[in-house]
Amino acid sequence: MHEAFDSDILSSPGHGGHRRLGIVGGGQLASMTAAAARRLGCDVVVLERYAFSPASHAAGDTMIGDWNDAAVLTRFAQGVDVVTIENEFVSVDALAAIEAQGVAVWPSTPTLRLMQDKLTQKETLAGAGLAVTPFAGVSSVDALRETVHRLGLPAVLKTRRNGYDGKGNVTIRSSDEIESAWRQLGAGTTPLYVEAFCPFEREVATIVTRGIDGRVAVYPLVETIQADHICRVVKAPADTPDRVTVRATDMAVAAIEAVGGVGSFGVEMFLTADDSLFVNELAPRVHNSGHYTIEGCLCSQFENHVRAIMGWPLGATVMTAPAAVMVNLLGTARGPGVPHGLANALAVPGAHVHVYGKAMSGAGRKMGHVTAIGATMTEALHAATSAAADITFGSQQ
Amino acid sequence: MHEAFDSDILSSPGHGGHRRLGIVGGGQLASMTAAAARRLGCDVVVLERYAFSPASHAAGDTMIGDWNDAAVLTRFAQGVDVVTIENEFVSVDALAAIEAQGVAVWPSTPTLRLMQDKLTQKETLAGAGLAVTPFAGVSSVDALRETVHRLGLPAVLKTRRNGYDGKGNVTIRSSDEIESAWRQLGAGTTPLYVEAFCPFEREVATIVTRGIDGRVAVYPLVETIQADHICRVVKAPADTPDRVTVRATDMAVAAIEAVGGVGSFGVEMFLTADDSLFVNELAPRVHNSGHYTIEGCLCSQFENHVRAIMGWPLGATVMTAPAAVMVNLLGTARGPGVPHGLANALAVPGAHVHVYGKAMSGAGRKMGHVTAIGATMTEALHAATSAAADITFGSQQ
Repeated sequence: MHEAFDSDILSSPGHGGHRRLGIVGGGQLASMTAAAARRLGCDVVVLERYAFSPASHAAGDTMIGDWNDAAVLTRFAQGVDVVTIENEFVSVDALAAIEAQGVAVWPSTPTLRLMQDKLTQKETLAGAGLAVTPFAGVSSVDALRETVHRLGLPAVLKTRRNGYDGKGNVTIRSSDEIESAWRQLGAGTTPLYVEAFCPFEREVATIVTRGIDGRVAVYPLVETIQADHICRVVKAPADTPDRVTVRATDMAVAAIEAVGGVGSFGVEMFLTADDSLFVNELAPRVHNSGHYTIEGCLCSQFENHVRAIMGWPLGATVMTAPAAVMVNLLGTARGPGVPHGLANALAVPGAHVHVYGKAMSGAGRKMGHVTAIGATMTEALHAATSAAADITFGSQQ
Repeated sequence: MHEAFDSDILSSPGHGGHRRLGIVGGGQLASMTAAAARRLGCDVVVLERYAFSPASHAAGDTMIGDWNDAAVLTRFAQGVDVVTIENEFVSVDALAAIEAQGVAVWPSTPTLRLMQDKLTQKETLAGAGLAVTPFAGVSSVDALRETVHRLGLPAVLKTRRNGYDGKGNVTIRSSDEIESAWRQLGAGTTPLYVEAFCPFEREVATIVTRGIDGRVAVYPLVETIQADHICRVVKAPADTPDRVTVRATDMAVAAIEAVGGVGSFGVEMFLTADDSLFVNELAPRVHNSGHYTIEGCLCSQFENHVRAIMGWPLGATVMTAPAAVMVNLLGTARGPGVPHGLANALAVPGAHVHVYGKAMSGAGRKMGHVTAIGATMTEALHAATSAAADITFGSQQ
């Protein structure tokens, strides 16, 4: 009846025996992962370069330091049992050093190394027989010209590393643009590759969680709606014919098996007008397209990531309602990371508002998201978009 | 697509403008409230007497100190906008001091004062026309004898303050036991009252959330199954005839209105064989019988508590599935607060395991809970009880 009082019986130091999870990176992905891990009894420590990160409030402890410094990572790893990442750009060499010392790192460093280089990632997928758009590495402007000639226009020139949200990508629409695209991405100072533009009609995605033992849990196929290369809306499930859904799901699982993934992974795919599917890109971590799983599925991508890397059984990925919609909340301007209009958003029945607690807003910065579940897609879409429209960050309001 | 990297753009101190919530008490109720508050963008600070409390990992900051010390509470209140409690035994005088300084305290100190004295609570409920079992304050053993004679046997002698989980209660089954019951509860050194034993068939409960503006959200009626005065299982919704459900719900709302409650409140009721309902007890805080609302209802009792005390609109209380069952995880012995058998529990599809992260287990101590939602009560009950049966705390395994 009265459980509060028992907090006074005993609360002493010494968490010995709890599983200790270290997360490299302190953003919203780490925050949501930390919340899921704590609920399963894990102690969570976050490594972030700055104080006051979103995850610092969800974790038991935060270590401030540069995650690309092997000495910092080694010190971090000494206090935990399992290390995972929220950021695919962490130095694999630094992670490999702690892995060599016997600390479990998931996803494994071979998987991360393979995935960080987008060209190697594509080669691996193609090698596993998965459909990807035609691509090739290019190490000179002449090679680029030749490859674009072969692949056809439009084509997309990309950096092999560190691209995100459209950064590190240049679309080449005519032969005239080859030279400038080459210069724009560093004129060969950074490794590049080029791929044929995929004339997709829709973008679909899913989350695949794979355990250390190879067991796989796969989430419903969703449709992602992007603007300016940033995900805006996720509709779950995707409105695709069953055979497309099954094919996409099989492709996603095969892709994560091909890279030897352990943990939760985002798999983005292109769907063309003739129902062809191409793997676009894999993320070696929980993914924005899976945020809806917190309320929309029995076990979220975050909890399943923790289950996977701790060696625990994976949770059920079935949806809790016929439809779920997630809408990202992007900052409109630089300013304090405080939501305006929150009360209006909370008046929308069934809208689940997630504010990430970032100290500062920036234009286009992901500041939070809203998820709504519903008996129909129309209902969920209406609730999520109305609530999201009420909230702004960084504006003077 | 890649949101992780933006954690590096800016993460500086200065959370100015976020709503700052102070929670007095650092147990599991504070922890689950803190998680809900953080998701809505609040900064959360916890006041607890010991380090390493369950809530310390869910809050942005923890202040260590005695919450009954007005000086400590004043310092605590200086850093927050709104103060709430997870523990109904906090000194109301100390809270009143900070309320007088202009810091919002919810529930208000008049409400807390009224509820902390169980006799005053009963008088208030009776005064509002709500059915309660016959009761009376007793200040001498002769008065006790006389009152028991009037109310009939069995009767229950109770301390007016600080009773919980059966502590501070003695059942008097025959006239011979009056004298010993009186001595057992301090022989008049502490204020006592006596009530007629209610021959209930079932215990039902609900959570009522009431806003500062008086608006009310009420959760489904649930059945609670107790053993040794501790809640073991909560079944939502209660299997009661519609007219009973409606009557119980109306009574619960009237009870919280009668005490002027703001926030989420647990309302426990007795249901007799002839479908009579009596209010048993109110808790001025989120309640164990509402833990299922995290997964089982659109908006949890914790989020609604935060919405209420922040002056935001209340969330929808409808269930996300036809049935939900919560089973408490109690410690079996003193020992480290680490769950054994977690992997087996996680293998039960749809079981949501919540480990509170207490440093130490104790026999009968609430260490966590399991919730399962299902298409039928049988399904939810099976999943929740199987998963809960797999987990032990404090035993040698």
